[in-house]
Amino acid sequence: MEKTAANPIRIGVVGYGNLGRGVENAVAKNPDMVVAGIYTRRDPGQLQPLFAGTPVFSIADLHQHADRVDVLVLCGGSKDDLPVQSPELAAKFCMVDSFDTHARVPEHFAAVDAAAQGGKTTALISAGWDPGMFSINRVMGEALLPDGATYTFWGKGLSQGHSDAIRRIPGVAGGVQYTIPVEAAVDAVRSGVRPTLTTRQKHERHCYVVLAEGADAQAVHKTIVQMPHYFDEYDTTVNFITQQELKDNHSAMPHGGFVIRSGNTSAQNKQVIEYRLQLESNPEFTSSVLVAYARAVHRMHQWGMTGAKTVLDVAPGWLSAKSPEQLRKDAL
Amino acid sequence: MEKTAANPIRIGVVGYGNLGRGVENAVAKNPDMVVAGIYTRRDPGQLQPLFAGTPVFSIADLHQHADRVDVLVLCGGSKDDLPVQSPELAAKFCMVDSFDTHARVPEHFAAVDAAAQGGKTTALISAGWDPGMFSINRVMGEALLPDGATYTFWGKGLSQGHSDAIRRIPGVAGGVQYTIPVEAAVDAVRSGVRPTLTTRQKHERHCYVVLAEGADAQAVHKTIVQMPHYFDEYDTTVNFITQQELKDNHSAMPHGGFVIRSGNTSAQNKQVIEYRLQLESNPEFTSSVLVAYARAVHRMHQWGMTGAKTVLDVAPGWLSAKSPEQLRKDAL
Repeated sequence: MEKTAANPIRIGVVGYGNLGRGVENAVAKNPDMVVAGIYTRRDPGQLQPLFAGTPVFSIADLHQHADRVDVLVLCGGSKDDLPVQSPELAAKFCMVDSFDTHARVPEHFAAVDAAAQGGKTTALISAGWDPGMFSINRVMGEALLPDGATYTFWGKGLSQGHSDAIRRIPGVAGGVQYTIPVEAAVDAVRSGVRPTLTTRQKHERHCYVVLAEGADAQAVHKTIVQMPHYFDEYDTTVNFITQQELKDNHSAMPHGGFVIRSGNTSAQNKQVIEYRLQLESNPEFTSSVLVAYARAVHRMHQWGMTGAKTVLDVAPGWLSAKSPEQLRKDAL
Repeated sequence: MEKTAANPIRIGVVGYGNLGRGVENAVAKNPDMVVAGIYTRRDPGQLQPLFAGTPVFSIADLHQHADRVDVLVLCGGSKDDLPVQSPELAAKFCMVDSFDTHARVPEHFAAVDAAAQGGKTTALISAGWDPGMFSINRVMGEALLPDGATYTFWGKGLSQGHSDAIRRIPGVAGGVQYTIPVEAAVDAVRSGVRPTLTTRQKHERHCYVVLAEGADAQAVHKTIVQMPHYFDEYDTTVNFITQQELKDNHSAMPHGGFVIRSGNTSAQNKQVIEYRLQLESNPEFTSSVLVAYARAVHRMHQWGMTGAKTVLDVAPGWLSAKSPEQLRKDAL
């Protein structure tokens, strides 16, 4: 039965950090869905949801709630939470996660697929924007322009991993890192000439760092710019700021970037496809993607399409609350 | 059985104008496909394919070639050819067309669906870039950011319909029309503020016109800029040029444009998604889309997914020559 505002898709939110709050916000913008519950490892009584009516439960209660939830949205981290939670929960629930450790996607898929096949559930992994929307655009760009090259640029945006790396340096009291695409590289790619670009030519890294009392600025600067893999291959700028400046000017989580495919359809003609995101809140956008894919997962499960899935297995129309007839009329 | 270079998908090309030539070019760039034949209403002996090895047949032979062709790519026009050809051929063949009369998509879908259901074929209509890639981005943008607005801009590009309208004016010996997005409007939309834009505020129209011997330039200018629907709602510029200038500078068929969805994921945060095409050859890109969807149609038919389809029914991975395993490894 198609879900409507009167009979909404019931979303279970597993974990309540930035992503979990984003899911609560996103579900509020989709009339055909409702948050059936937030499931937390914390004391449920202490958790303050964004909307007063959102039920909060202990994650321990989840296994008794199979009849209360249509799709779980897993909001944990890719390093420690999802490799355990996703296979465990996929055995019993339809679910979506945002697993984003690119190199480990195949093994995560295999583990979730085994669980979902066993439980006859539908479990979609690695939704979000990269992996996610950017993956779709890489695949479609290559399919449409097989004689071509694909470029991914990230930013301007706050990189969580690189910010963490800075904050672990002795003498650093706080800090953030922004990844910024190099304009000349972007322009070259957009022109369709398919340039060969080094890591340094594609992105710059800008760091805003608060020093700990008595720390040696020069030593911290050197540690950052020479940090293998994270910074040494990039042109890195380090700006020292106060704790107050960090709080006032660097608390937002903007991000974005673009996937560009350029290719030739004949010897004469070049074509360029560009997909671009400008996000004021990286976690809120990721949550919005998770919620749209939760709708698709619910449909796919009703159609008997069980097992592990990715965004590459989902047709665009399945993401929409509108009927196929309505979409053909409105969008084609 | 998955198709490979050794066992390629056999494409039948119906009609051999700009689109048909584009399909021949596109298939040459996809090792898992081959052109089984070009089917023409002209004398097959007079038709010169791009590649010497491409077989050419009379369209009258097509009904005997059901066992030689896996998917037909229909390269006729939306006004006269496809409304007749698509339902007729879908009764017997899997097929893709580029039907682009937006308002008549529902009735075209219904006619093709009846034929394809009857023949147990898979028939995808309205592939291309608009409708097509732009439709996908309108649907996905709305699904990801339900609290938002969608904007489509076309150009800079040569508009076939508007060029034809100019050429029908008495006193005009030749001419082309370019549609150009207004930069200020694009910038406003990209900023995420969701402006309300009139037709005039979104696009300009630039005309390059060759006058017939003795024609009155002022009268032609007036007829163009006042032409209802085509030009009167736009800021239109008319430039008079020579036949030689028309040939030298305006023979290419560039086009493109962008779909922008901007929306809020919370009261605080705006998000902007942009999909942009810069095409040196409009027909060659459309043909490349048709060919990628022919691959998906072939797969869907093998999976038993029969009836009429659109790009909104096709998952991204189905367009790719790569296996799902390979795609997960490469693109996620």
